[in-house]
Amino acid sequence: MSEHLIEKTISTKEVFKGRVIDLVVEEVKLPNGNKSTREIVRHPGAVAVIAITPENKIVMVEQYRKPLGRTLVEIPAGKLEMGEEPEVTARRELEEETGYTCSDLRPLISFYTSPGFADEIVHLFIAENLEKLENPAELDEDEFLDIKEVTLEEAEEMVRNKHIYDAKTAYAVQYLLLNKR
Amino acid sequence: MSEHLIEKTISTKEVFKGRVIDLVVEEVKLPNGNKSTREIVRHPGAVAVIAITPENKIVMVEQYRKPLGRTLVEIPAGKLEMGEEPEVTARRELEEETGYTCSDLRPLISFYTSPGFADEIVHLFIAENLEKLENPAELDEDEFLDIKEVTLEEAEEMVRNKHIYDAKTAYAVQYLLLNKR
Repeated sequence: MSEHLIEKTISTKEVFKGRVIDLVVEEVKLPNGNKSTREIVRHPGAVAVIAITPENKIVMVEQYRKPLGRTLVEIPAGKLEMGEEPEVTARRELEEETGYTCSDLRPLISFYTSPGFADEIVHLFIAENLEKLENPAELDEDEFLDIKEVTLEEAEEMVRNKHIYDAKTAYAVQYLLLNKR
Repeated sequence: MSEHLIEKTISTKEVFKGRVIDLVVEEVKLPNGNKSTREIVRHPGAVAVIAITPENKIVMVEQYRKPLGRTLVEIPAGKLEMGEEPEVTARRELEEETGYTCSDLRPLISFYTSPGFADEIVHLFIAENLEKLENPAELDEDEFLDIKEVTLEEAEEMVRNKHIYDAKTAYAVQYLLLNKR
């Protein structure tokens, strides 16, 4: 850690506690001794899953994203429940959102999505050897989505035409291009 | 657009208006007619720049990220000013954060970083033919950072050891691996 860059917390004000996110405003002491404020969104963290079918297609879900006022096509993803291991969340979200389970689930990378204002981290997994569940778990009661299975070439086209338009899914498409098998 | 997935806004409550982000809570009508709430962070949008030096190194900046309580190594980035074209922001942030300007600046891709709870979009550029400015512009008064020029191999190692740990920079490293020249 580069000590000379650290911002020390002077005070923390809780502005909002929600179902998904909390918001705090911190007064901080900057490295030069001056004061500033930081607006910080607290998020429980999330997982995302690159799921590859036996036909070598990528499982995508299309859902309405209220912050954007439009649907996006994304790899399956979901929030961590309190105290849950990311691998458990990844398998649960894969099963709930796609109706597939898998015998091979591996962590690929984790990354912060918006480090300037939020602590959200996404743990990215790859799921292979998928099998359709006979009795898939139900979606959350406020979750509605369409499932799409696409080839890598179709996914690339969806990036170009902005149906795929989020960081984790764009990363996933690049990952598959780099690691073709 | 897939009409059957749309969530209609019933009411919007402004919870917080900040320097960087705003927070609203919307009551929505779900596709099945039920009601739910959505917590939404409004953000002005941002740019990020993959900057390649004449020595074929990538310019990175290390800065303290208060939401995470640690420093991250990232590609240069910054928020859009009101009404500003992303290309203008990209050149300004490159100059302020790195002291370089460039004669070749191209848009690569744009993506939403956290579509579940925020409308932040990042416009990613690549800057080549860099030249050191004799009198670089000053950083914002609450901005402190270290500049690092790294090879692509060093950047890959920084992903592995979690010095690079954010989505846009992980994407940038993959982009350069896919498009080696």
